[in-house]
Amino acid sequence: MTYMKEIQKAVDDWAQTLETPYWQPLENLARLSEEVGELARELNIRFGAKKKKPKEEVGEIEDEMGDIIFTLACIANTLDLDLQKGFDHAMSKCYGRDKDLHEKK
Amino acid sequence: MTYMKEIQKAVDDWAQTLETPYWQPLENLARLSEEVGELARELNIRFGAKKKKPKEEVGEIEDEMGDIIFTLACIANTLDLDLQKGFDHAMSKCYGRDKDLHEKK
Amino acid sequence: MTYMKEIQKAVDDWAQTLETPYWQPLENLARLSEEVGELARELNIRFGAKKKKPKEEVGEIEDEMGDIIFTLACIANTLDLDLQKGFDHAMSKCYGRDKDLHEKK
Amino acid sequence: MTYMKEIQKAVDDWAQTLETPYWQPLENLARLSEEVGELARELNIRFGAKKKKPKEEVGEIEDEMGDIIFTLACIANTLDLDLQKGFDHAMSKCYGRDKDLHEKK
Repeated sequence: MTYMKEIQKAVDDWAQTLETPYWQPLENLARLSEEVGELARELNIRFGAKKKKPKEEVGEIEDEMGDIIFTLACIANTLDLDLQKGFDHAMSKCYGRDKDLHEKK
Repeated sequence: MTYMKEIQKAVDDWAQTLETPYWQPLENLARLSEEVGELARELNIRFGAKKKKPKEEVGEIEDEMGDIIFTLACIANTLDLDLQKGFDHAMSKCYGRDKDLHEKK
Repeated sequence: MTYMKEIQKAVDDWAQTLETPYWQPLENLARLSEEVGELARELNIRFGAKKKKPKEEVGEIEDEMGDIIFTLACIANTLDLDLQKGFDHAMSKCYGRDKDLHEKK
Repeated sequence: MTYMKEIQKAVDDWAQTLETPYWQPLENLARLSEEVGELARELNIRFGAKKKKPKEEVGEIEDEMGDIIFTLACIANTLDLDLQKGFDHAMSKCYGRDKDLHEKK
């Protein structure tokens, strides 16, 4: 499957229009922390204890997750890595190595 | 485009074989933090200051990113959200709202 | 030493004035992710690649770290844990188990 | 109060024995992500859905929080910042700006 490759290509098509296509790995990692923090905030408002401040706008959980995927694609493109391969590995753990950690129907 | 929908479907095909297909949102968020931490560790060893301890195995950056995508798909599936829509929104910001934050060629 | 105990006490003195003194552990963890994300953002602006958007305010790195310490004190107070003991353990690793990971003068 | 200054001093007393006392800010941020991820893992095992793998050791929540405080002290020392000032600011928000976000007894 090559779904994530298409995601990486969409990001690269845009990045190649820039003077400096990609940030350094630890810079992108910092951005990833920031995006995860924004997702955490939204999830804590919807499913946890956090209250909104008056007049405060709430972002979209979907969009915050989109930002995380975008950032992962940037990191993968910089390092010439294949997110599909990483995802396939995650799925293979579900069906293999870690399968007894989850109770079957 | 529907690339991320295929990713979400692959996760759901597996999750539906389980007694409890998905964790709660804040539980998945905790897992996301853990996976991001593992990616941070790998990137800091390769591109930063962190030294490996003797005999310590280093994971694969690609696999850590795969785990993050897997976790995002779990969150999206639980909440009936569409990661492709979130990603498309991230790309639209690149070409639109935030485009002047990046210097063009 | 009991420095961190004083920090935890300051937080508890305030928390005990509330109807519900503390959030649940995974709620506080979500808040921790959010605060770490805000620190990541500030550090990436000052020391990385991130540009501010026009008219955007930049927070204070010091304050973001203060929010993280506050959140840790909340978690520790909820679980009746001692942050000083945890910190002393971190220092003991520096002088002991991990000491060969760092090159001496 | 100067509690956090004592924490920062304990870290600096050790750091100054090293060839390179401190990492770069984004390197320390990566370490912070890693430590937060380890805390997330422990909290998800105790209070969430995560199961331990067979024979897997579980760390101590207290120690993971100690590692986070240690890392914050490193960042603060590198940038000549005062964690006590940041914490005092967090407390002042509790009693001031954000006080109506929390229901009183």
